[in-house]
Amino acid sequence: MKEVSSITSLPVVTESIDPRQVELVSRYADIIQIGARNMQNFDLLKEVGKINKPVLLKRGMASTIKEFLMSAEYILSSGNKKVILCERGIRTFEEETRFTLDLSAVSLIKNLTHLPIIVDPSHATGRRDLVISMSIAAIAAGSDGLIIEVHPNPQEALSDGFQSLALEEFSTLMQKLYPITQAVGRKI
Amino acid sequence: MKEVSSITSLPVVTESIDPRQVELVSRYADIIQIGARNMQNFDLLKEVGKINKPVLLKRGMASTIKEFLMSAEYILSSGNKKVILCERGIRTFEEETRFTLDLSAVSLIKNLTHLPIIVDPSHATGRRDLVISMSIAAIAAGSDGLIIEVHPNPQEALSDGFQSLALEEFSTLMQKLYPITQAVGRKI
Amino acid sequence: MKEVSSITSLPVVTESIDPRQVELVSRYADIIQIGARNMQNFDLLKEVGKINKPVLLKRGMASTIKEFLMSAEYILSSGNKKVILCERGIRTFEEETRFTLDLSAVSLIKNLTHLPIIVDPSHATGRRDLVISMSIAAIAAGSDGLIIEVHPNPQEALSDGFQSLALEEFSTLMQKLYPITQAVGRKI
Amino acid sequence: MKEVSSITSLPVVTESIDPRQVELVSRYADIIQIGARNMQNFDLLKEVGKINKPVLLKRGMASTIKEFLMSAEYILSSGNKKVILCERGIRTFEEETRFTLDLSAVSLIKNLTHLPIIVDPSHATGRRDLVISMSIAAIAAGSDGLIIEVHPNPQEALSDGFQSLALEEFSTLMQKLYPITQAVGRKI
Repeated sequence: MKEVSSITSLPVVTESIDPRQVELVSRYADIIQIGARNMQNFDLLKEVGKINKPVLLKRGMASTIKEFLMSAEYILSSGNKKVILCERGIRTFEEETRFTLDLSAVSLIKNLTHLPIIVDPSHATGRRDLVISMSIAAIAAGSDGLIIEVHPNPQEALSDGFQSLALEEFSTLMQKLYPITQAVGRKI
Repeated sequence: MKEVSSITSLPVVTESIDPRQVELVSRYADIIQIGARNMQNFDLLKEVGKINKPVLLKRGMASTIKEFLMSAEYILSSGNKKVILCERGIRTFEEETRFTLDLSAVSLIKNLTHLPIIVDPSHATGRRDLVISMSIAAIAAGSDGLIIEVHPNPQEALSDGFQSLALEEFSTLMQKLYPITQAVGRKI
Repeated sequence: MKEVSSITSLPVVTESIDPRQVELVSRYADIIQIGARNMQNFDLLKEVGKINKPVLLKRGMASTIKEFLMSAEYILSSGNKKVILCERGIRTFEEETRFTLDLSAVSLIKNLTHLPIIVDPSHATGRRDLVISMSIAAIAAGSDGLIIEVHPNPQEALSDGFQSLALEEFSTLMQKLYPITQAVGRKI
Repeated sequence: MKEVSSITSLPVVTESIDPRQVELVSRYADIIQIGARNMQNFDLLKEVGKINKPVLLKRGMASTIKEFLMSAEYILSSGNKKVILCERGIRTFEEETRFTLDLSAVSLIKNLTHLPIIVDPSHATGRRDLVISMSIAAIAAGSDGLIIEVHPNPQEALSDGFQSLALEEFSTLMQKLYPITQAVGRKI
């Protein structure tokens, strides 16, 4: 992984789910991800709070905004100030989308904290046909970034193909995002 | 009400909650609103389906997108094609906002139907500090319009003051909205 | 319907969904039912508050306990004191059952009010294999009665067959209920 | 803790939240508890799957029944067959109770698996006045046991006093439970 990263110059984000492996993972990854299922795995949070790499903390699928920020606080108070929050949808009764993307959480968190927050519309909606519009809406709501799943051929993807953008769709997204970032006063 | 409307030239939107009063209300209002609590009041839906005025149908606070569209179908199939949908937040466990504004529903409904859909960020969030950002995000997500509560002096409003914009905030919103509407290819 | 009732001596419960028909329905039905979708149809509530027949008020599928009691209050304050409440499940993320039966609501409402409350495990679970156990649990939680769907041949039922008990299952339920009613100090 | 256990002959249940401490905790505890926040902490599940002590697995506060059983499967497939499930309430919009106790999950899980399942009405409701009735309902629904918080003086409890039973209330509960266990054919 580290090798591919050197060749491609792409930074590596890897999930760590076990406090015992945090140190090892942090040697090879550029960003450590804490998944939604581990948002309240407090020992893991404390462990990534001790390293010197950015941590991408995903919101639990039924966590309140308060709980999300309290989990971030675990990492911050352990010494690691490089916390990036990620809204990735919450559980509701709705069945057309996998989760319900909570963009007011993004806006509220921007008001409450200085931490960067990004949005994952691919996981949140679980539907390719909503990824572009929800990406645009996320940036408009104040999101500092996006996680977009892309695949050269989504129909043949081993996993999550139905929520991945094809390369030309990704290109469309980037073109549509540009004027929005300008409109909300952000530079890219 | 009709009189004030004539003087101000502002169109009147009024909620009808009783099938017996639909005919009367439609004589004075320009748009008939069906509130979230009545989204599945099928007799009322059929009644407003018989009149020749636009109907603003608000999504039930725990209604799926499918149920929302099926309620619209009740009106359409009774003969009234002028249905405007309105997303106004759904119930979740979140306590920081009154409801959770579901912008992916807006985008999905734009894909599934030809009906106009607007968003009510004031009711959905219940917080003045989120109204501007959620309005921008709603338009970015594809919303055809917004319902914004405004009050000359929100602190003294008889109801819903905490979610109403002051006049200068409304003016700020309009200025911020303009470039977004341009960015998503809409004209105002 | 009235005729069948005379012949069989079974009382008739019928849903009224339109305030204009309340008076008519109340002439033929022994109990007027207000469905979950109309729990906050306030004109309908006021209308059934004026008649002299018991009203069976079903809880809205996303209504809080407070809202449920406030809807009952609409009927009571219009003059009709014969209100029977009915818990029939609330919407959650769970997909194995149609709704989530909220038995703590039953117990809490018994503490808060003097109104009778009954439970509808057939609609709440949507699964025949849970109806018997949830009926027993409902009575144990303090429920004053049950609505059980029964069909001579559930496999061939025109609607809701998958949640209806066959006659012999109903007989099993009655046998199992008897000792529970004794155990919680109720007589049948 | 071990010492107190020897003196009192009460078995010890302790939560383990870190895979690194499972072995240590299992030396002193009679049962290892996995808390709701760690229900999908898969490394922890695999770790407790390797020990020879019973594991009490609490349902995540927004986990489906399927996910709950899949988490149990992680422990079982790692070799430890002594899994006890615990329903402790799920998150909904209801605000009168802390969580919504899902007793149909108990009944459904009894149908689907051979694993014992117990219920925690104290945490689920967060209200002392509901603990007795929900305990009775839980046993009626098929629960194999209960976790009841008791305190000699709940008003002075350092934590969770508002949901703890006083000793005389606990005694009342035990008396009320006895006929229910008889009624559902269980022996105590």
